[in-house]
Amino acid sequence: MYRIDNLQYANWSEKIFRQMREGGLDAVHVTIAYHENFRETVLNMERWNRWFEQHSDLILKGRWAGDVRRAHESARTAIFFGFQNPSPIEDDIGLVEVHHDLGARFMQLTYNNQSLLATGCYEDDDTGLTRMGKQVVREMNRVGLVVDMSHSADRSTIEAAEHSERPITITHANPHFWQPALRNKRDNVIRAVTDNGGMMGFSLYPHHLKDKSACTLESFCQMVADCAEKFGAEHFGIGSDLCQDQPDSVVEWMRVGRWTKEIDYGEGSAAAPGFPPMPSWYKDNRDFGNIATGLATVGFSQAEVEGLMGDNWFHFYEQNFKPAS
Amino acid sequence: MYRIDNLQYANWSEKIFRQMREGGLDAVHVTIAYHENFRETVLNMERWNRWFEQHSDLILKGRWAGDVRRAHESARTAIFFGFQNPSPIEDDIGLVEVHHDLGARFMQLTYNNQSLLATGCYEDDDTGLTRMGKQVVREMNRVGLVVDMSHSADRSTIEAAEHSERPITITHANPHFWQPALRNKRDNVIRAVTDNGGMMGFSLYPHHLKDKSACTLESFCQMVADCAEKFGAEHFGIGSDLCQDQPDSVVEWMRVGRWTKEIDYGEGSAAAPGFPPMPSWYKDNRDFGNIATGLATVGFSQAEVEGLMGDNWFHFYEQNFKPAS
Repeated sequence: MYRIDNLQYANWSEKIFRQMREGGLDAVHVTIAYHENFRETVLNMERWNRWFEQHSDLILKGRWAGDVRRAHESARTAIFFGFQNPSPIEDDIGLVEVHHDLGARFMQLTYNNQSLLATGCYEDDDTGLTRMGKQVVREMNRVGLVVDMSHSADRSTIEAAEHSERPITITHANPHFWQPALRNKRDNVIRAVTDNGGMMGFSLYPHHLKDKSACTLESFCQMVADCAEKFGAEHFGIGSDLCQDQPDSVVEWMRVGRWTKEIDYGEGSAAAPGFPPMPSWYKDNRDFGNIATGLATVGFSQAEVEGLMGDNWFHFYEQNFKPAS
Repeated sequence: MYRIDNLQYANWSEKIFRQMREGGLDAVHVTIAYHENFRETVLNMERWNRWFEQHSDLILKGRWAGDVRRAHESARTAIFFGFQNPSPIEDDIGLVEVHHDLGARFMQLTYNNQSLLATGCYEDDDTGLTRMGKQVVREMNRVGLVVDMSHSADRSTIEAAEHSERPITITHANPHFWQPALRNKRDNVIRAVTDNGGMMGFSLYPHHLKDKSACTLESFCQMVADCAEKFGAEHFGIGSDLCQDQPDSVVEWMRVGRWTKEIDYGEGSAAAPGFPPMPSWYKDNRDFGNIATGLATVGFSQAEVEGLMGDNWFHFYEQNFKPAS
C-alpha cells in the first residue's frame, strides 16, 4: 500500500523530489544532522521549510503516520526528519521535546564515535548507555522520538533495546552474516531490537552490500528472505542510505565533522575516499520498485512485499511517533 | 462561555496555576520573552514543558483554539506562548515558522525601543515598518503568528495593521482618552487595528489605569463601554498584564534588558521603580470574575460580557492561529 524509504541523505533538489514521485515514495525519513549543534540543526529545518513552501506540489512535512496517507492521497512524498547523532540536543535533555515539536522523529544515540549517550561502532571499547543516555532514552520514549542505533556499538544497541520502554530501530544496516562490514549487525543485536518490537531498515549503501557496488538484486533479496525467516518479516523495511548527488566533501563532513583534524576514511579508504557507485538496480528513487520485484521473485507473498516496501514502517510510525499515553 | 486572559507575565508557580483554576480561566496567553535571543527563548519553553509535565492536572500547552475547549472540558487552563519583542527571531525570518512550530502565537514587533522590524513607543521618531518588518509581518501572516503592537509607536502600529493581510492585535493597553499614559492608545490607532478585524485586550496594569492602583471597577468598566460604543464590543477582551509575584529585578529586566547600562524607569520612576500594587478588585486570577460583574453593571448584555471575558479572543484564536490557506 505505502512505499517508505526510512533513510536518505541526498543533496536535495527539485529533481530528487520529482524522482521520489516517479518511484512512488509516499514517505522518506531524511537525515538533517550529523554533527550539527542545536542552532545549526534548526537552520537545516529552516532550509527544509523553504523547500516545503517552494515544492508544495511534490513534498510535505511529515509529523504523524497520517501524513503518509495524506501524501499518498495527494501524490506527494511526506518528509520525516531524523538525526544520525545526538549533537542536536547538545547536553540538554529539554531539547528532546523541543526537537519533537519541530518534527524530529528519529535520533541516533551515537554516530561512529562515543557520544554523551552511548558508544559508536568505531570505538575500541563499548561501555553501553551512559548515565545521560539512560535518561535521554526515557525522555525520547515519553515524547515519541524514536531511538536509532544504526551507527552504534553492539553492547550499546542491546542495552538501548532493553532499557527503552518503546521499540527501537536500526534504520539503515544489513546483517553481518551476509556482509561482514563493521556497520552491519550481528544476529544477537538484530534479535535484541526485533524481540522488543523494533525494526531494521535494509541499506543499499554499497559498503553494506555483499560485493559492494556489484551486489545483485537476487543476493540482496535472498538476504532479506533469510532475515525474515530468522527474525520475522514484519520487523523489516528499507532504509536505503541514498546519498544522491552529494559531493565527496559531504562524506568527509559525515566522517570527521569537527572532532578531528585528521582524515578518517570510515568505510572507505585513502584509495577510494568518496561515495561508492550505487548498484545498477538501485541508482536513485526511481528504481525503488525494482526491490518489490526482486522480493516477489525470492518467494515473498504480496502482503509481505507490501510490508517490506513500506507498510511495516507505516505501522511503526503509527505506534511510535505520538507521545506516550 | 470561555474565560481568556490574553496577557500575563507572572512568576509562575503551582500556586498561580491553582489560582487560574479558581478564577475559571480556560486560557492564558503568557509572555515567554522580553529580550531573550533564540536559544534563551527555547530555554524558557523548556521550562514551560517541565511545568506542563509536572502540573498536567492544572495546565496544558495551548496550540490551537480547540485546546481552549479541551482545557475547559477538563477543568484546566491552556497556556499560549507569546513574545513581547522580536528578539527571539534574531535577524532570521526562518525562525518565525520555527517558533510557530514550537507553539508561539503572538509576537510584538517592538518592545519599547526601535527593533529590526518597527519603532517602539519610547523612541523620539517613529519610522514605521522597516524593510525586514514588512517581510516578517507577511511571514507571520503565512504561518499564523499574530502581530502584537502593544509597545509600538503609533505610525508603526497603523502601518502594521494596514500591511498585514490578517488581523493584528494590541494584547494589553487601554485607550489614551481615558488615561493618557504613553503606552495607552489613541483613537486612530485603535481604529486602524479594529477596522482591519483586529483586537485589543484591556490592561489592568496600574500605570495603564485611570487613578492607577486606586482605579475603580466602575471607571474601568465604563471605559470598556465607551470603547465598545466607539469601536464595537466584539473587538475587545482582557489582557491583564498581571505580573504576580515578580521581584522588582524582573521589571528592571523588562525595561533595560541588555540594551543599556543605565537604569530606565519606563512607566515607573526613581521614587517608585518596582511593580505598582494591583487594584483592589483585581489582585490576581481569582478576581477575574469581578470584571464580568462590573461589565454587567454598566449595561452590557450577557452575550457581550461573555465576548469580552473570553469568547472574542476565542473566535480570534480560531481564525488566526492556523497557517493561511
